Amino acid sequence: MKKINIGLLGMGNIGTGTYVLLEKNKDIIQEATGCQVEITKILDRDTTRDRGIYVDPKKFVSDIDDIVLDEDVQVVIELLGGVSPAKDFIYAALHSGKHVVTANKAAVAADMPRLVSEAKANNVKFMFEASVGGGIPVLSAINGPLQANHFEEVLGIVNGTTNYILTKMTDEGLEYADVLKKAQELGFAEADPTGDVEGLDAANKLSILIYLMFGKYVAPSDIPTTGITKVTKEDIKAAKEKGAVIKLLAKADKDTYSVGPELVSLDHPLSSVNNEFNAIYLTGDAVGQVMLYGKGAGPMPTASAVLGDVIQILKGEK
Amino acid sequence: MKKINIGLLGMGNIGTGTYVLLEKNKDIIQEATGCQVEITKILDRDTTRDRGIYVDPKKFVSDIDDIVLDEDVQVVIELLGGVSPAKDFIYAALHSGKHVVTANKAAVAADMPRLVSEAKANNVKFMFEASVGGGIPVLSAINGPLQANHFEEVLGIVNGTTNYILTKMTDEGLEYADVLKKAQELGFAEADPTGDVEGLDAANKLSILIYLMFGKYVAPSDIPTTGITKVTKEDIKAAKEKGAVIKLLAKADKDTYSVGPELVSLDHPLSSVNNEFNAIYLTGDAVGQVMLYGKGAGPMPTASAVLGDVIQILKGEK
Repeated sequence: MKKINIGLLGMGNIGTGTYVLLEKNKDIIQEATGCQVEITKILDRDTTRDRGIYVDPKKFVSDIDDIVLDEDVQVVIELLGGVSPAKDFIYAALHSGKHVVTANKAAVAADMPRLVSEAKANNVKFMFEASVGGGIPVLSAINGPLQANHFEEVLGIVNGTTNYILTKMTDEGLEYADVLKKAQELGFAEADPTGDVEGLDAANKLSILIYLMFGKYVAPSDIPTTGITKVTKEDIKAAKEKGAVIKLLAKADKDTYSVGPELVSLDHPLSSVNNEFNAIYLTGDAVGQVMLYGKGAGPMPTASAVLGDVIQILKGEK
Repeated sequence: MKKINIGLLGMGNIGTGTYVLLEKNKDIIQEATGCQVEITKILDRDTTRDRGIYVDPKKFVSDIDDIVLDEDVQVVIELLGGVSPAKDFIYAALHSGKHVVTANKAAVAADMPRLVSEAKANNVKFMFEASVGGGIPVLSAINGPLQANHFEEVLGIVNGTTNYILTKMTDEGLEYADVLKKAQELGFAEADPTGDVEGLDAANKLSILIYLMFGKYVAPSDIPTTGITKVTKEDIKAAKEKGAVIKLLAKADKDTYSVGPELVSLDHPLSSVNNEFNAIYLTGDAVGQVMLYGKGAGPMPTASAVLGDVIQILKGEK
């Protein structure tokens, strides 16, 4: 059986989840690809942390060149997060002729057109299904079964932290600050929640959706973005009286785009997307309205999308 | 530019929609595939019916051999509906080395394992995204971005006619027979609604889902199937009192499968899938719950999926 070696950049929660899922569902991956797939090298400084699984310490490297210059590595999975140095590492991998799979919306959104064209120029695949909506198969749908459509609009609940906070504010009549505190205690919000609550994470994802649906690149910083920190329990009560809920929506059509809190009428499918769930509601000229719903984050949903991309790449090589 | 000729089997509503969409969204298809795609031959006895568009009468043929033996035809789109003669025509096309795209759930479900293996043996693609959920990108998701999962369960509202009838019964407190009559007048139900209201259409779709998700073939006739004809307004009232609605669910896990009316709790995402909309709710061991929602029928949503498949095939040939 053909052996495929993967270099993994970043062994935090998502990286660990991906490592675990690759072991757990080895049977499916072999069956689908005809390959024996193994993570043979891991770029991560922390070699001793307890990740709940055994990982051969010899797999850990501290220099990106140990992976991108390794001729035995065919695929690089980038799960470092953040623009830098992740983006440089992705370029290095593409230039070395490796396929790249990433879940990193910040890095993808920062430089999407060039990343896509560099992959083409090097005749390798660059896939990032996990970067928008985590496990929800939205990007593949846009590029695949929905690709005969001219897209008209997208409305997305694409950030789980803010959706969790708004749901709790709605259900329990609490103020933003109180729910945030509770969410941080429960692990649904980070210690520094800025990227989520100010809408920056959603803007990264919207930038990617705009590129794939409308064929133009809008940098995340050029998307008018409002977070949820100023939403009050009075706002939510007023929405309820109008038969609506407040959701942080990432929305775009051919000409306009924005991220911000919006009223969503209770008869709209997005209104019942609650807690940490995400959903993307698309309109195409042929298909009409389509909604894709699921877990937008977390190690296992993200690993599902990452390994879905890896399988797709290897199927294409068969 | 490379020219791709398509043979279309069946020019009813769906076939006409596909013809229209191919013309309308030619730009996207050329851009995505680098090919000029044209329907050059149409198998349909009715050459004179007003379809609302101009079709060159010379395109019509009455013998399947005029298409499957035509060396200039690379792709066959089968939209005849029903098992026979559609299935034989699909085999004839596959044997002649043509890629086949179909929306015909009855034909696919009738003989899925052999159809798939015949396509492989002839080194051509056999695609049928439109056969389940119309425009909803569910089969591509199972075979693509979700393929790293062991699937655990599927719950589907996969028949628009029955969902429309149950929704109206629920919203307006009417009896089945009265709503059916109204649905027939409005074109939401066929003159002979048996295949829909007895659950046979849903069983065909469930057979296809079981094959792709659980890797085993269950003939539609082997799926325990109950329709909605015996659902009364009292049943619906009783469900409401329990905080639920009645939906015709196609459901399966690894070991069990059935089609029938079921209570769906109001806090379940499927409970708000109303009227002619369809939704498929999947559980995978990594991704957790995913729901895909949209229009499960109609010429344009179906054409969206059919041409999505065509583009996918042509991209693979680039």
